[in-house]
Amino acid sequence: MPRVFSGIQPTGAPHIGNYFGAMQNYVTLGEQFGKNSLYCVVDLHAITNPAASDPRELAGRTFDMAVANFAAGLDPAKVVFFAQSHVPEHQELSWVFTCLTPVGELERMTQYKDKAAQYESVPSGLLMYPVLMAADILLYKADTVPVGDDQTQHIELTREIARKFNHHYGETFPEPKAVYNQGAVRVPGVDGHGKMSKSKGEASTIGILEPLDSIWQKLRAAPTDPQRVRRTDPGNPEVCLIFDYHKLFSDLDTIQLVDVGCRTAGIGCVDCKKKLMEGVTAHLEPLQERAEGLRADPDYVRDALRQGAQEARAIAAPIMDEVRHKVGFLKL
Amino acid sequence: MPRVFSGIQPTGAPHIGNYFGAMQNYVTLGEQFGKNSLYCVVDLHAITNPAASDPRELAGRTFDMAVANFAAGLDPAKVVFFAQSHVPEHQELSWVFTCLTPVGELERMTQYKDKAAQYESVPSGLLMYPVLMAADILLYKADTVPVGDDQTQHIELTREIARKFNHHYGETFPEPKAVYNQGAVRVPGVDGHGKMSKSKGEASTIGILEPLDSIWQKLRAAPTDPQRVRRTDPGNPEVCLIFDYHKLFSDLDTIQLVDVGCRTAGIGCVDCKKKLMEGVTAHLEPLQERAEGLRADPDYVRDALRQGAQEARAIAAPIMDEVRHKVGFLKL
Repeated sequence: MPRVFSGIQPTGAPHIGNYFGAMQNYVTLGEQFGKNSLYCVVDLHAITNPAASDPRELAGRTFDMAVANFAAGLDPAKVVFFAQSHVPEHQELSWVFTCLTPVGELERMTQYKDKAAQYESVPSGLLMYPVLMAADILLYKADTVPVGDDQTQHIELTREIARKFNHHYGETFPEPKAVYNQGAVRVPGVDGHGKMSKSKGEASTIGILEPLDSIWQKLRAAPTDPQRVRRTDPGNPEVCLIFDYHKLFSDLDTIQLVDVGCRTAGIGCVDCKKKLMEGVTAHLEPLQERAEGLRADPDYVRDALRQGAQEARAIAAPIMDEVRHKVGFLKL
Repeated sequence: MPRVFSGIQPTGAPHIGNYFGAMQNYVTLGEQFGKNSLYCVVDLHAITNPAASDPRELAGRTFDMAVANFAAGLDPAKVVFFAQSHVPEHQELSWVFTCLTPVGELERMTQYKDKAAQYESVPSGLLMYPVLMAADILLYKADTVPVGDDQTQHIELTREIARKFNHHYGETFPEPKAVYNQGAVRVPGVDGHGKMSKSKGEASTIGILEPLDSIWQKLRAAPTDPQRVRRTDPGNPEVCLIFDYHKLFSDLDTIQLVDVGCRTAGIGCVDCKKKLMEGVTAHLEPLQERAEGLRADPDYVRDALRQGAQEARAIAAPIMDEVRHKVGFLKL
């Protein structure tokens, strides 16, 4: 059976782009692969640039990311869900890989070059990031890695590191494959400017745990087809982000109704948004109630993370033993 | 009370240069500071360049380094003696420091520049080496680091990393100081070419665990004062490495005897070497017998290393807890 590993950045509350892009996919993969699907909140990666991360917030964001995923349907009893910093074998393996990876290869990573260009003084964590990522994946001999397409180069490096280790120390690691979530849509930002992204700020995102009236304020203000100026003008749903959202949240009947209604000026934009809000509410309200229940029971969340870390370490233990032996560390 | 940390490279059998340069100093510091003196066989550093280290030999060399130090008088019950790979907190802290250290500072390290120049493709371990070294030291909040003067720049970086952590996450680490072993002599190589060094090969070194007849062969062939051609020529002990060795191994009477004897041609070089060999034997024979006893009882050595790792982890545990909390990792 394949083994799935995915890293989740603890960078603030997830939005509906994360939800439809990755989180729902985790649920599906989790149902398919059970305890062979590992989801890791990568808090070690989150400190890569200490100047940009607030240590007073990190623990809370790690906790929140567990809450959000559990509320979204990921059952920690069925998958392995844990925080990276609770499994120190990640860094242990990372050092072994650091010694196998040429500086030049890391300097050639596109993401590194892009990010490094923004610094006067580049933190080494930024350079070593893909090595830790390789350790994240190979620590579990995972072969299947759901990622965004911006991670293609890092997965290729992971494969290269696996090959190097196997060549130098003997056959040990699989060469993992990136899997891109085909079903996932690129969710547009609610400000109408490109993809929904945390980096563009709160105003462009709809958080899955955001209060419903705050979501409604954003939807009400959201741009629609700019050609449709008057209520009586027919519109084009193809260029309207509200219609994109309908495809995520509404049932087929509603989608058809607003599609035809927009093209024939049979429905106004405000009514169309109200219909959308019904779908959003139907979708997010129970999720938010589950999240509230989880927050009210932090021990459940902590226990789940503790259990997840134990399960992860149990998978990693024989693999690290093999690594330590092959690398030549003295076994006591 | 100060806390001493020193790293010991597991790179083959120690020679008398290591013995008089560092190992005797460890014994002295150990008697002074007891369990506040930590000695760590740095097997993680030994894989920095995997191409240059043989994984089939590393475990044995780590074991041998424990044997040699115990035989030389270091009592594992009185100090903390352990192997780095048995305390994964070293890598854990190293990642935190990696994120705090600019790439540029590491690229400026003299030792890195010297070593990197020898590679087509520079392993990242070479670049990150001083960060792991900083973690080695600060993991125990050690403030006193006996090192060779080639490590001055790395200790300065360690102090800089301590300052950065303290500045960013709150006062935590002391700024450790390098201490140079004033009493130690620079032991010349037995081939007469500069300092005794493993890197110049077996022929230039006298191993402390080397069979005595092998040592005698090397001493017999060793160059003396080149101006003293005939037995009847007076010699100059100041330019003779055999006289340097006398100062390490012989008692004061013998040193005076050969000093005067050489200058007056009262003693020939072969007899002078035989006198030296008596001192070498008196010194190394009991040490080699202890080593043989330790090799015959590998469980003792392994138990000592296990105990040492436990003691090291007990010191590191509250310090790592403090670090994890300050950096913002979720505590379960």
